[in-house]
Amino acid sequence: MFFRSFFDEKLAHMSYLIGCQKTGEAIIVDPGRNLTPYFEVAKKEGFTISAVTETHIHADYASGAKELAELFNVHLYLSDEGDKDWKYEFAKDVGATLVKEGDEFSIGGVHLKVMHTPGHTPESISILLTDKGGGAREPMGVFTGDFLFVGDVGRPDLLEKSAGSAGTAKVGAKDMFASLQKARNLSDDLQIWPAHGAGSACGKSLGAVPVSTIGYERKHNWAFQITDEDEFVDELLSSQPEPPTYFGVMKKLNKKGAEQKPGNMPRRLQSLSDLKEMIDDHVYVLDTRKSPLFAYGHIKEAVNISIEKSFTNWAGWLVPYDKDLIVVVEEEKLDEVITALQSIGLDRTIAFIDQKTIEQDVTLPMYKQVDVHEAYQTVRSSEAALIDVRNDDEWTNGHAPEAIHAFLGHIEDHLEDLPKDQPLYVLCGSGVRSAIAVSVLQKHGFDRVVNVKGGFTAWVGADLPVTKDES
Amino acid sequence: MFFRSFFDEKLAHMSYLIGCQKTGEAIIVDPGRNLTPYFEVAKKEGFTISAVTETHIHADYASGAKELAELFNVHLYLSDEGDKDWKYEFAKDVGATLVKEGDEFSIGGVHLKVMHTPGHTPESISILLTDKGGGAREPMGVFTGDFLFVGDVGRPDLLEKSAGSAGTAKVGAKDMFASLQKARNLSDDLQIWPAHGAGSACGKSLGAVPVSTIGYERKHNWAFQITDEDEFVDELLSSQPEPPTYFGVMKKLNKKGAEQKPGNMPRRLQSLSDLKEMIDDHVYVLDTRKSPLFAYGHIKEAVNISIEKSFTNWAGWLVPYDKDLIVVVEEEKLDEVITALQSIGLDRTIAFIDQKTIEQDVTLPMYKQVDVHEAYQTVRSSEAALIDVRNDDEWTNGHAPEAIHAFLGHIEDHLEDLPKDQPLYVLCGSGVRSAIAVSVLQKHGFDRVVNVKGGFTAWVGADLPVTKDES
Amino acid sequence: MFFRSFFDEKLAHMSYLIGCQKTGEAIIVDPGRNLTPYFEVAKKEGFTISAVTETHIHADYASGAKELAELFNVHLYLSDEGDKDWKYEFAKDVGATLVKEGDEFSIGGVHLKVMHTPGHTPESISILLTDKGGGAREPMGVFTGDFLFVGDVGRPDLLEKSAGSAGTAKVGAKDMFASLQKARNLSDDLQIWPAHGAGSACGKSLGAVPVSTIGYERKHNWAFQITDEDEFVDELLSSQPEPPTYFGVMKKLNKKGAEQKPGNMPRRLQSLSDLKEMIDDHVYVLDTRKSPLFAYGHIKEAVNISIEKSFTNWAGWLVPYDKDLIVVVEEEKLDEVITALQSIGLDRTIAFIDQKTIEQDVTLPMYKQVDVHEAYQTVRSSEAALIDVRNDDEWTNGHAPEAIHAFLGHIEDHLEDLPKDQPLYVLCGSGVRSAIAVSVLQKHGFDRVVNVKGGFTAWVGADLPVTKDES
Amino acid sequence: MFFRSFFDEKLAHMSYLIGCQKTGEAIIVDPGRNLTPYFEVAKKEGFTISAVTETHIHADYASGAKELAELFNVHLYLSDEGDKDWKYEFAKDVGATLVKEGDEFSIGGVHLKVMHTPGHTPESISILLTDKGGGAREPMGVFTGDFLFVGDVGRPDLLEKSAGSAGTAKVGAKDMFASLQKARNLSDDLQIWPAHGAGSACGKSLGAVPVSTIGYERKHNWAFQITDEDEFVDELLSSQPEPPTYFGVMKKLNKKGAEQKPGNMPRRLQSLSDLKEMIDDHVYVLDTRKSPLFAYGHIKEAVNISIEKSFTNWAGWLVPYDKDLIVVVEEEKLDEVITALQSIGLDRTIAFIDQKTIEQDVTLPMYKQVDVHEAYQTVRSSEAALIDVRNDDEWTNGHAPEAIHAFLGHIEDHLEDLPKDQPLYVLCGSGVRSAIAVSVLQKHGFDRVVNVKGGFTAWVGADLPVTKDES
Repeated sequence: MFFRSFFDEKLAHMSYLIGCQKTGEAIIVDPGRNLTPYFEVAKKEGFTISAVTETHIHADYASGAKELAELFNVHLYLSDEGDKDWKYEFAKDVGATLVKEGDEFSIGGVHLKVMHTPGHTPESISILLTDKGGGAREPMGVFTGDFLFVGDVGRPDLLEKSAGSAGTAKVGAKDMFASLQKARNLSDDLQIWPAHGAGSACGKSLGAVPVSTIGYERKHNWAFQITDEDEFVDELLSSQPEPPTYFGVMKKLNKKGAEQKPGNMPRRLQSLSDLKEMIDDHVYVLDTRKSPLFAYGHIKEAVNISIEKSFTNWAGWLVPYDKDLIVVVEEEKLDEVITALQSIGLDRTIAFIDQKTIEQDVTLPMYKQVDVHEAYQTVRSSEAALIDVRNDDEWTNGHAPEAIHAFLGHIEDHLEDLPKDQPLYVLCGSGVRSAIAVSVLQKHGFDRVVNVKGGFTAWVGADLPVTKDES
Repeated sequence: MFFRSFFDEKLAHMSYLIGCQKTGEAIIVDPGRNLTPYFEVAKKEGFTISAVTETHIHADYASGAKELAELFNVHLYLSDEGDKDWKYEFAKDVGATLVKEGDEFSIGGVHLKVMHTPGHTPESISILLTDKGGGAREPMGVFTGDFLFVGDVGRPDLLEKSAGSAGTAKVGAKDMFASLQKARNLSDDLQIWPAHGAGSACGKSLGAVPVSTIGYERKHNWAFQITDEDEFVDELLSSQPEPPTYFGVMKKLNKKGAEQKPGNMPRRLQSLSDLKEMIDDHVYVLDTRKSPLFAYGHIKEAVNISIEKSFTNWAGWLVPYDKDLIVVVEEEKLDEVITALQSIGLDRTIAFIDQKTIEQDVTLPMYKQVDVHEAYQTVRSSEAALIDVRNDDEWTNGHAPEAIHAFLGHIEDHLEDLPKDQPLYVLCGSGVRSAIAVSVLQKHGFDRVVNVKGGFTAWVGADLPVTKDES
Repeated sequence: MFFRSFFDEKLAHMSYLIGCQKTGEAIIVDPGRNLTPYFEVAKKEGFTISAVTETHIHADYASGAKELAELFNVHLYLSDEGDKDWKYEFAKDVGATLVKEGDEFSIGGVHLKVMHTPGHTPESISILLTDKGGGAREPMGVFTGDFLFVGDVGRPDLLEKSAGSAGTAKVGAKDMFASLQKARNLSDDLQIWPAHGAGSACGKSLGAVPVSTIGYERKHNWAFQITDEDEFVDELLSSQPEPPTYFGVMKKLNKKGAEQKPGNMPRRLQSLSDLKEMIDDHVYVLDTRKSPLFAYGHIKEAVNISIEKSFTNWAGWLVPYDKDLIVVVEEEKLDEVITALQSIGLDRTIAFIDQKTIEQDVTLPMYKQVDVHEAYQTVRSSEAALIDVRNDDEWTNGHAPEAIHAFLGHIEDHLEDLPKDQPLYVLCGSGVRSAIAVSVLQKHGFDRVVNVKGGFTAWVGADLPVTKDES
Repeated sequence: MFFRSFFDEKLAHMSYLIGCQKTGEAIIVDPGRNLTPYFEVAKKEGFTISAVTETHIHADYASGAKELAELFNVHLYLSDEGDKDWKYEFAKDVGATLVKEGDEFSIGGVHLKVMHTPGHTPESISILLTDKGGGAREPMGVFTGDFLFVGDVGRPDLLEKSAGSAGTAKVGAKDMFASLQKARNLSDDLQIWPAHGAGSACGKSLGAVPVSTIGYERKHNWAFQITDEDEFVDELLSSQPEPPTYFGVMKKLNKKGAEQKPGNMPRRLQSLSDLKEMIDDHVYVLDTRKSPLFAYGHIKEAVNISIEKSFTNWAGWLVPYDKDLIVVVEEEKLDEVITALQSIGLDRTIAFIDQKTIEQDVTLPMYKQVDVHEAYQTVRSSEAALIDVRNDDEWTNGHAPEAIHAFLGHIEDHLEDLPKDQPLYVLCGSGVRSAIAVSVLQKHGFDRVVNVKGGFTAWVGADLPVTKDES
């Protein structure tokens, strides 16, 4: 048996390719939409990808399952658990096999068995793997999807929050409790292969360790330590981070099946005036440069999300799905940007402009950047308002006394609450999110916006005043 | 003024970008279809490409002019010389300016003036450039297209041969003589910027020097040495290399205007069986690996043209325009292959398979490769026929006594003339073309085909017998 | 805690970087000599590599430990187990901490505890990891080095065979048995992180699965199934593959500590004559091209080991440590070749020549390649000898009746046993090793050597006669 | 004949490779120190570089001639003109042929003839090329080095200014006049192939056109228009840009012969503290990031010269030759940085740190950037001093009324003249040089330094007050 895991850093998403050397077949578990990494490994190792399975209908990234079925003749094994709201609508079209608790299937000598583990979502399954080709009689591990993570369990509240399915969170939490009791009986030595690692919004305290075991999690995972259902439900539902708004979109997309992603390149814009001509209400300009470069000169209409680790997260929060996108980008990174956008279903990138072209215009407007000392002095003397764009949890755990709280993810819904008559000094955790927020505010007409370098981390490090407060 | 030349090695095609620093505008002369190099330079130097001109309707590559006009709002200046058979059909649709002898136009301080120089084709123009922005009063050079090359002049016979326009060659040769007398009066110091360098089929003895001058060519170019028109016509029409068959297709394409080239990537094939399933009469398999790799294992239906210098030439000769293409390729070179194919209008690449996948099958058939000594012995003893696939000129200048002549470019038209009852040992100049020929012959059912390494070069180097003969 | 594994495919070597996010420190376990991958991850995740530990003195690759200590101020934790023959000689020079059974040390919140697990070698230790920073009370896993693999245990016979330490194998096998009984008592849920994956010569049946658990191995690993010591020793020592001869060199090198690897690039050779001029007894020419390219034209003195998966293995077998190396290489792969050579201590690459330069000479000699059918016919009719270069195990399990056995790894020791008066047709498993063997034989003056494509795999697939025999 | 020109953009340096296809030999004219481009072309075209010639001892870049001779057995042809101060000291050691006016030599069919053309320097020669292999009787062009450029002539004052050779400028100017009269007699159609293009400090108005002709220059080049020697001398010596101080160093280096450049990579620094530990008086820290990134967070000791077009120029002005260098760099660009530094003989790069590591520290100090409006207001209200770091010419042509002039190239010599008691707002032409100046000032203890975005270009564009003044 051949086993390889894949980690998409921007999505904190883990997926797996398991191959049988005897038959040359391989199966992917929970494929992302960027299929290249799977094909590269398959090619190198001499496998044909013949099957795909998913642990559930994902809400945080666009799945590549339908494309694999339609374009590459790959057979799908999809969950048939959950009620009618939780069915893959495209399953029949692609001839997928629907699986339920206890069902078994094989790819060469790789044997898989389904276990229903609802909680994160009703149709969630876990999949036990046994290396029969290697002579094994018992399973080696289990693909747990968003049920069981290293150090955490999945969130049952994603859809209630992001898709507005009232009341589902509590039901999910109870399901989760039951699924955990079921998992408790699995063998200690079983490996746990989850769908997410550290950095995902699908759990609240995911570890930066890729693999764990049933025995280890039973001893250390907080979720296994609570034996009272009510206590567990309370704990699970408390202080989960806000799920990104795009999760609702993804869930619908993956239910319907993400279409084959567009393979063509966006059009190159030769000059700033080409770009400015295109700007209207149907177009969204996304500037993916590092924030100090954006700060030094940019067009007012652009939102600045740098193509770094948390790019897809903030693109998912802020970029609309119903507009055409124009990206400002270092041309060498165009592929990376497009792939990252497509990984969450943002397929409408129609044009790009290279950062060099932007930089050649020395008259483009700047925004100011200050350190925490200058921010503190200015705010203290009431010459500016301090806007804290961190999330509720971070805010509650401590913030600057004068700060106004406006979480970045929802900032566009609360623009009217922000002071119009004075400069806005924007602060986050370390300076990443505040830079995004500054661009959003500028776009909406706030023209005296300042980024506070180093964020709350630097604020605390500089011993500036901090208060605790309810959000 | 900014001046940059571009050399597409596979096409031996030269094009030019000239910019005016004062206005930031630039013009391209004779753009190829791959626009990236022009945009890269324009971006780096801070120019917007605002205009394009062409010296004539090209026959050896697909022009990017129409795409520039339609997609990038670039203004075209196109020849209005020649009769109704030689008009750009799309000129009106894109609002092009039609130009004739004596017409002038400017891009910023770059001033251009048209000179009608028929011969290669009736509508051919040359374009004199004067750096008015730099204070010049007289021209610096002239874009001569396929009229005047470094050391040669254009061929008047391309279309008669490749597109079957009977009788046009002689008319063209006379036009060429007249155009030369016109050029004779230009200033000695004028630079000559032609559309082709060494390696092009558009002239017979092109130099590997990119630039020349009127004065130098007047002294050294053979065409200026002949003052009698009839003698010139005879000389010009004698022993021109055979023009590739695709020249006729290109001429039609460029008259109509090459459409925007498809931007999407071809589909990846996972396995040899995926490839074999797709093979039918509507599909053409092109294997772009080096010939020894192909020789070691390949599918019978594939033709092997290695992605090296002469790739587009032989692809133009052999690959049909009315079939879908599947390419066997080292994945790192996929872009290069697609771009090269598109540069001559072969836009129908629908799928690719990586060479690694081919190599993993150890049972694929081989073909034999021998050195000239073994080839000589075998042919001598009548155990095999020797097929020489070089062109008429090379053949006439000397060949192996036992050889049968079958020029690679037309080999598919003469398959029935080749011996069926004995192995075919295939020879060319150095081994490149014979490797292509072997693959073509195998595809057509000849199953005992052998490549002679080193070709006629090695044959002569080994002092093997040579005879001279009429083709 | 942050956990990342690294797999060097050419060495089948696994190493690990574990970081503590709180202190920003990281430790590497069993570093290879190519440090770039570790630094890249550390940089991306914001760690400083402050410590290194090793499970034992490695014999199959050059360790980067000493370089890390000397050049990057990294603190080493090295085994102090085993007798005086098994001590790190450079430990004191770099201020390393020597550790023994039961010793504990921490890097930030990452806690490590030493367990002596001899068998593979006397000083071998395993290292238990506890994520104290993450609040864990019990270990999460154990770095087992070459003690316990996924599906196998380490070889106790490497040094007896490769370094000629008579009698050590049996002692080691007994130690291994004892260490296994010790491991048997570890918790089922502990992850096993070995130093090798599939493809390594350090064990005989390593799985292509990167991680396992104590519980799983106890159930499935053959070594845990045998409870009788003698039976275990017999089984362990039987039919181990031949260890490469370079293992002895590596062991000495790592004991002394591999010096900082040379950072300079080898000199470029402009032409074949430059290369030929340099050839003498002190120089070894290694051609790293794919074998069909080598077959088509090469210099007689070169040995051809293609830069693919098993490159370092065969380079270790065949390339001398006391000669300067000149490599024939595709220039894009020069770094890869140099890094691979340095990974096993071959540091003397003084020059390279690009494959293009080789290919331009059409008169270079070829060697023939035939398929199994032609090989069978020729050998059958006694016109050639068939040389099988596979290892003893493969030979014993079946071979062609007429074949002569000469294992590639030792072929240079048995040249006088090979027939001189007839062509040699060389066969291996699939065609990779036979291509190497052909080049070795040519180098030593055998001038009628032929590679049999597809090897024994194709032979069997073609239903050609097979016999079983003692080697 | 094969002819290829090379343009090193950072040095604005042109060099040439000319090959003879018949013999496979090639010669390089005026090679830079980065030999890779020459070898790449030679390899591709099948040439062996067998000879090198130089037009003079270069002062603006380190020559690769000696390395070619010593390491690649290339034969040198070097000028023997000029007095004893202008001799190549290494000529004898490498067996170079010394050439004088009228000397001729050939590489295959490529024939070269020496013409003494002093002025830029006493030993300067021009070299006429005749394509004898191609049947030419008369020269095709002339390599003019720094004698005759496209639109300009070389500077006779470089050494007087940069190396302090008093009185040499006027002598050189007269020589230049004489050399021009000599060139006047060359044939109009001769191509001119100079050693520099636009952007070089070796002439004052070099064109961005790579090639010209004798006839064209005679008509348009200002130097040919003046027929009175005194008038010419006055004009030539007036308002030449300040030559970089490193020109003196280069001249000495090339006379002695630049040693083979170090091939090893600098050491990687893992963390900021590693970097800080190394800082002392013998070390110089060069931060090559874009200036807005540097502005956002940097170490105080670093000077910021971004790795863009004018990098080598400013590195030559500011970086000392007698210190070890540590570079802050985007790792992908490390090779580019090292190559650029080595191209002007800065060989002592001992370590690097990746920009990611710098960026991870959110507490590093910033400097402010403001637009011209804010700069104007602040300076107007006397809250800050405005420092203009442009050169004398630019200053004289117009500057802000309140500005203090301090040319960047000499700013470190005039630190005591700058105001200490108020913030310094630094302005240049477009913002590139002011960013460098800000870093230099910060390094020397000025802690309230501000970069004015867009420079004088934006100042004028914003209609802010301008005055003219003597420098």
